[in-house]
Amino acid sequence: MRDSRQIAVVGVTGYSGLELARILLRHPEVQTPTFYVRDANSTKCLSERFPQFRGWGEAPLRALSVEAITSSNAGTAFLATPHEVSAELGPAFLKAGLRVVDLSGAFRFREPETFTSWYKLPAPHAEWLNEAAYGIPELYSKEIAAARLVANPGCYATSVILALRPLTDSRWIAPNTSVVCDCKSGASGAGKDPRRDLHFVEVDENFKAYGLFTHRHTPEILEHTGLSESQVVFSTHLLPLARGILSTIYVTLDQPRTAADVESLFRQFYTGKPMVRIWSAGTLPELQHVAHTNFCDIGFVLDSSGRRLVLVSCLDNLGKGAAGQAVQNLNHMLGIEEQTSLQ
Amino acid sequence: MRDSRQIAVVGVTGYSGLELARILLRHPEVQTPTFYVRDANSTKCLSERFPQFRGWGEAPLRALSVEAITSSNAGTAFLATPHEVSAELGPAFLKAGLRVVDLSGAFRFREPETFTSWYKLPAPHAEWLNEAAYGIPELYSKEIAAARLVANPGCYATSVILALRPLTDSRWIAPNTSVVCDCKSGASGAGKDPRRDLHFVEVDENFKAYGLFTHRHTPEILEHTGLSESQVVFSTHLLPLARGILSTIYVTLDQPRTAADVESLFRQFYTGKPMVRIWSAGTLPELQHVAHTNFCDIGFVLDSSGRRLVLVSCLDNLGKGAAGQAVQNLNHMLGIEEQTSLQ
Amino acid sequence: MRDSRQIAVVGVTGYSGLELARILLRHPEVQTPTFYVRDANSTKCLSERFPQFRGWGEAPLRALSVEAITSSNAGTAFLATPHEVSAELGPAFLKAGLRVVDLSGAFRFREPETFTSWYKLPAPHAEWLNEAAYGIPELYSKEIAAARLVANPGCYATSVILALRPLTDSRWIAPNTSVVCDCKSGASGAGKDPRRDLHFVEVDENFKAYGLFTHRHTPEILEHTGLSESQVVFSTHLLPLARGILSTIYVTLDQPRTAADVESLFRQFYTGKPMVRIWSAGTLPELQHVAHTNFCDIGFVLDSSGRRLVLVSCLDNLGKGAAGQAVQNLNHMLGIEEQTSLQ
Amino acid sequence: MRDSRQIAVVGVTGYSGLELARILLRHPEVQTPTFYVRDANSTKCLSERFPQFRGWGEAPLRALSVEAITSSNAGTAFLATPHEVSAELGPAFLKAGLRVVDLSGAFRFREPETFTSWYKLPAPHAEWLNEAAYGIPELYSKEIAAARLVANPGCYATSVILALRPLTDSRWIAPNTSVVCDCKSGASGAGKDPRRDLHFVEVDENFKAYGLFTHRHTPEILEHTGLSESQVVFSTHLLPLARGILSTIYVTLDQPRTAADVESLFRQFYTGKPMVRIWSAGTLPELQHVAHTNFCDIGFVLDSSGRRLVLVSCLDNLGKGAAGQAVQNLNHMLGIEEQTSLQ
Repeated sequence: MRDSRQIAVVGVTGYSGLELARILLRHPEVQTPTFYVRDANSTKCLSERFPQFRGWGEAPLRALSVEAITSSNAGTAFLATPHEVSAELGPAFLKAGLRVVDLSGAFRFREPETFTSWYKLPAPHAEWLNEAAYGIPELYSKEIAAARLVANPGCYATSVILALRPLTDSRWIAPNTSVVCDCKSGASGAGKDPRRDLHFVEVDENFKAYGLFTHRHTPEILEHTGLSESQVVFSTHLLPLARGILSTIYVTLDQPRTAADVESLFRQFYTGKPMVRIWSAGTLPELQHVAHTNFCDIGFVLDSSGRRLVLVSCLDNLGKGAAGQAVQNLNHMLGIEEQTSLQ
Repeated sequence: MRDSRQIAVVGVTGYSGLELARILLRHPEVQTPTFYVRDANSTKCLSERFPQFRGWGEAPLRALSVEAITSSNAGTAFLATPHEVSAELGPAFLKAGLRVVDLSGAFRFREPETFTSWYKLPAPHAEWLNEAAYGIPELYSKEIAAARLVANPGCYATSVILALRPLTDSRWIAPNTSVVCDCKSGASGAGKDPRRDLHFVEVDENFKAYGLFTHRHTPEILEHTGLSESQVVFSTHLLPLARGILSTIYVTLDQPRTAADVESLFRQFYTGKPMVRIWSAGTLPELQHVAHTNFCDIGFVLDSSGRRLVLVSCLDNLGKGAAGQAVQNLNHMLGIEEQTSLQ
Repeated sequence: MRDSRQIAVVGVTGYSGLELARILLRHPEVQTPTFYVRDANSTKCLSERFPQFRGWGEAPLRALSVEAITSSNAGTAFLATPHEVSAELGPAFLKAGLRVVDLSGAFRFREPETFTSWYKLPAPHAEWLNEAAYGIPELYSKEIAAARLVANPGCYATSVILALRPLTDSRWIAPNTSVVCDCKSGASGAGKDPRRDLHFVEVDENFKAYGLFTHRHTPEILEHTGLSESQVVFSTHLLPLARGILSTIYVTLDQPRTAADVESLFRQFYTGKPMVRIWSAGTLPELQHVAHTNFCDIGFVLDSSGRRLVLVSCLDNLGKGAAGQAVQNLNHMLGIEEQTSLQ
Repeated sequence: MRDSRQIAVVGVTGYSGLELARILLRHPEVQTPTFYVRDANSTKCLSERFPQFRGWGEAPLRALSVEAITSSNAGTAFLATPHEVSAELGPAFLKAGLRVVDLSGAFRFREPETFTSWYKLPAPHAEWLNEAAYGIPELYSKEIAAARLVANPGCYATSVILALRPLTDSRWIAPNTSVVCDCKSGASGAGKDPRRDLHFVEVDENFKAYGLFTHRHTPEILEHTGLSESQVVFSTHLLPLARGILSTIYVTLDQPRTAADVESLFRQFYTGKPMVRIWSAGTLPELQHVAHTNFCDIGFVLDSSGRRLVLVSCLDNLGKGAAGQAVQNLNHMLGIEEQTSLQ
């Protein structure tokens, strides 16, 4: 009775939600999704509220309630909602038999304590945390395909984990050395709510660091690279642009390697994973190469000693860092070509 | 007992207020101003609240109250406050013997009805409106020098009025033709309060028109050019940059003129007015020429018929369009060189 | 033997050419195009030269020569080349039996003198000018469908002509009044060649007018609205953003109209033309609504007299203003759904 | 006969040269400088070539020749010229008895080999290299005051060296650990010459790393921190903004320290150095705090282990990173208050 290809999207009003709408509206293998917002008022369709969709794609816009969704025959729900809302809605939908892709941090950790200590919020019940697949399909496609609940990763975390996994899986990183992840993001990553520090004048011609040693994406990076907290320094910065994350990652290798070694390690690791593009040794991706795409581009430079490696990992924080990856996860859940609607 | 060179600045928290602080702190002929804000909390000095002032200039920051100011021996108050606050504070300070430079719209019009109908707020008492000098010193220096109350003009209005006055004073504009004022402003002109439409992502890589036929600077333009409402079309647009206004103004001349005629009209009109710079015929000023200055730059192109004239008028909306002009007015009120602290 | 769905694209290196590549590579009804550039060197495929295409779409990249193209069985050539190159290549391809869509100004005018006097270059032979269809499909779909040669319009011209045609066709504009077209464009419209005035630092946080009374898109506007040169004032400005044109157009109507009249005139005119979106009376489109799309969005405000009308017309200068419209023209030439690959 | 307060500025056409003009024109203790450019043509004064200076400051503009300068009674020459030009002009002026402040890299290193190997150009004669003082006055004020030749440092180098020196002088950095310097600069740092990669469209909404392990400021950092090449990883990135450098620097301390320890180390080190502002523990400077100033702002965050320290160092690449610091050096050479004209 529930049809996985019938989609309910909760929370279309943020930047990730809008990007999700853009991608799902032209997805050839799902039905037109229904969008739910808290303040639907009298609007009936998406383009009444967001005129940029007129003539481009149309879909119903409804007032959000658990009943409205569980009583429909939607089979999959996307939650583009704050952590605390997701923590509440997710279990309700799962119990009603829907599959859930959650874009918040609510279900990203195995241990409730991890969530509680980094988010300062009560964690969802451990039963749901255990069931959640962590939604990076290049790493966990099997779990995602079978999952009822997918925790879509943080944008920074995706860019860092994809860059480090070939190295950590191969144990190429020298023990007892720091892995420095210096990450920079555009302003859409900070959400759409008006805030003094996101006023145009405060971001324009400005650049700043924030969240040092406290950023909530830290535990995702640790959990999925296997590195310890004392080994990773993770910093985040706000770029004066709308979309994109570029992470510059500094690694000390366990022994001297050649650039060809490194390139081949990465190419092999991501063989058959078209959404991760490895750049040739010595060439580096730029944000403009990935903006408005679902790619994560990874390049590197190795110093002449062969031991100091600098990785550059880029993605669109609304694409591979949020809505794009969410749909890539959906495609795996539906058993269809993972790039569908993502090119 | 009151000393005009002792300054109280009310409302330093907005962009105009901060710019005022920057200019007044290095003004060689006034004493260090005292700044007043509603929420001073426990802060005692400017740089505690605004760290960018550390090592640059220091000044006391106090909790705002009418008594705090009237009981000091401040002789001049700057009001960088919303219209309704200025409408209340202005008369209180005047009665206590201070001189007032108000940066809001509260005292810009002769007729209370004008204020009421464009601002949808009760107007200050007519006695104060009559006493106010309109603060464009290139046009009204004598009134300003003598005034107890100066109404600092709107930023758009300044750029348009300065460009049109040489033409309207000379009656060069063909009767019954439209004067089109197509104006564009950076985002600091819209104030510092967080608003959804001023979120970085909404302004960046975007451009839009707003306020057509309804902008509150319209009656200033009419009152100080003598043009009728039916003759002027005034539009405003939001540029993806922080500071600056550029107005493109389209005029039909009453008879064919040469570019030399027009240039000479403007040069003569602004002789001895160093803050208005006239560009040679056929060259046009750009925003970058006036950003972070108190200049208004005016250039023009005349078509081959000699009757269609396009003026380009640029200024920094926080400089000549607000705080800079306010200090230029102060300089006139103090009888000192008008460019003091403005270069 | 020649197949119209087999495409040769000349000049992929500019911004219009790259956008053309993006659109054509995912066009479901044409074969993978072959791209030709002067300096192909040893590169064999598009992504070697433009790494952003890797994993996204692939196509051959060849050294440009007339023979290389005429000896292939390409049926349609896109020319994303400078005027003088198009003027030479166009006739060569037409004689060899290809159909041509030219993005330059070379074939946009009926009269060779128009081209010569505005472009200061020798015009193509009149026989080709006569054969060229002017490529705004909302106005000339029949001619375009049948044409061997389509002159793709200027970006500014498209935004102005689409906004004015409903009014000029209905003779709603008061005679002997000026039509002021104040247009603003992003920097990609100025081309990709390095120029001092297009250096990031010269455009960022800057805004300026240019090309007053001399812009080459003027004669297109006159020819396709029927307005006289003395009636139109057309100005252009450079915005600090990459993509988009917004034109604010000031018109005096022949008699008082209601907003409903105007809206209905525009809606009727563009019925069945999905790429032009009319906004409801009093609401205005913004650049962000059309960036990265092939839409031209038109909104308006009418003053209380019912005679002064301000139109706002937006498009993406690389989309509906160049490459997007070129493909829309191709779709008409192929007799397929005009929005194919444009959503 | 030569007067140190009579200034010749060579190369006003670049961004550093223009900033130098802005600062020197309002410098109260030097005479109006004379500016020299290769292509003076018939222009006689600065504002003819750079209209933004009209009404602001005026100065002669002359055709550049060694004779023109050595035969004047200028006592100090600023060279805002490329390395190879400085390498040639510097010795010529020194021999003629002028003092020289050079903004290029030509005289920054003790050893000719260092220059040759990083710049791939012949080095100036060792006699001049030995005489040059490295122009960071917070570190070398005595040498600068006495110097005939000051090598003004690189912009990135200044931000990194000022942040590291308190730590290296105190030997607080753990031996055999990497010091990662992840630096980001605005586009004015790359110079004014038109280049494809500095086209507005290539920088806007983009961000990229460049110069990994090869940047020419590396040897300055090594020479003035005493760190070895194997210990420092120095990366540079291009920000989509005009002015400013922010360096995020990752250090492992030799033993656990408290934030108070670190703050006090930095405050003591920079006591009496007003142009370096230390931020309180846990607060971080942003680019907007230093743009258009001569400050270098330094803040830090220490992790809970007390051993991992992240420093954030900001400056304006045209201010403290180039022209501002050059004038600060001049002030030391003249024996006057070092902040003169820099506030």
